[in-house]
Order: sequence, then C-alpha cells, then structure tokens
Amino acid sequence: MKAVVNVYLKEGVLDPQGKAAHHALVSMDFEGIQDVRIGKQIVLTLETEDRVKALEEVKEMCETLLANTVIEDYSIEIL
Amino acid sequence: MKAVVNVYLKEGVLDPQGKAAHHALVSMDFEGIQDVRIGKQIVLTLETEDRVKALEEVKEMCETLLANTVIEDYSIEIL
Repeated sequence: MKAVVNVYLKEGVLDPQGKAAHHALVSMDFEGIQDVRIGKQIVLTLETEDRVKALEEVKEMCETLLANTVIEDYSIEIL
Repeated sequence: MKAVVNVYLKEGVLDPQGKAAHHALVSMDFEGIQDVRIGKQIVLTLETEDRVKALEEVKEMCETLLANTVIEDYSIEIL
C-alpha cells in the first residue's frame, strides 16, 4: 500500500525556494506567473493493507518527523 | 488558475533523502515501512484561464528549470 504525503509551508510563511524559482522563471521570459510555492512530496510504501491503520501511522510520522508543524501543513492520501 | 507539479526521482535513481527519512522512521519504532521516496511539489499560480496553454507553458517550465530530466520525472495537474 502506498501513502502520499504532501508537506507545504503554511500560508504567510516565506518560501525563499519558491521565490527563487519564480524569479528564475520570470528571467527566462515566462509570463503571467503570480506565485510559486515549493513543498515536499513523500511517497511511503507500507506493508499493511489496513487503510485506517496506515492513515493513523502516517499521521503520526508527519507529526513527529516528516513535517515541521510550526511552519508546515500536510495532507495524506492513501492509495 | 493553479498548476501542481510533482517532481520525483526516476526509478533506480538513489534517493539519499528518502533513505535518511526511512532510517529515522525505523529508529523511531515505526514498523512495516518498505520504502520512502522524497520529491518536490511545486504549486504555480498562473494568470491565464486557458488550461491548454497553461499545461503547455508549465511543461516547458519543467523541461527547462523545474525538473532535472536526466534523473527526475514529473507530472502536471492543472486545477
């Protein structure tokens, strides 16, 4: 079973990596870009086939290691 | 209009960041994790409302800047 976790900066938190990409795209003559935000996508391959247990476990992984919940939010999708 | 780009390492390419996260999770007593892969999720806010044009533009951004196509694949979703 796979779990996909998207970790992204909370709204209002500065994203220097996104800003740099935005700047680079503009300097390469791409037009009409209002904003660029860059986050992480973590794909976990799990042994369990229990979706409820998987979601619970992955949530705990996010809270303790994968996301910095002070400045980041996350979403979990079980595939 | 928003475009979400997921950039991930091609299969077979070593992912040291994912390996480190995997190792950390195991050492924190999380069990049953077979693999961890870490990629980037880039969220672009675009001015255009033309989905076809947006997809084309974002594809070019990926090919020229956002992804290293030697070792990375990407997927684009227009929202």
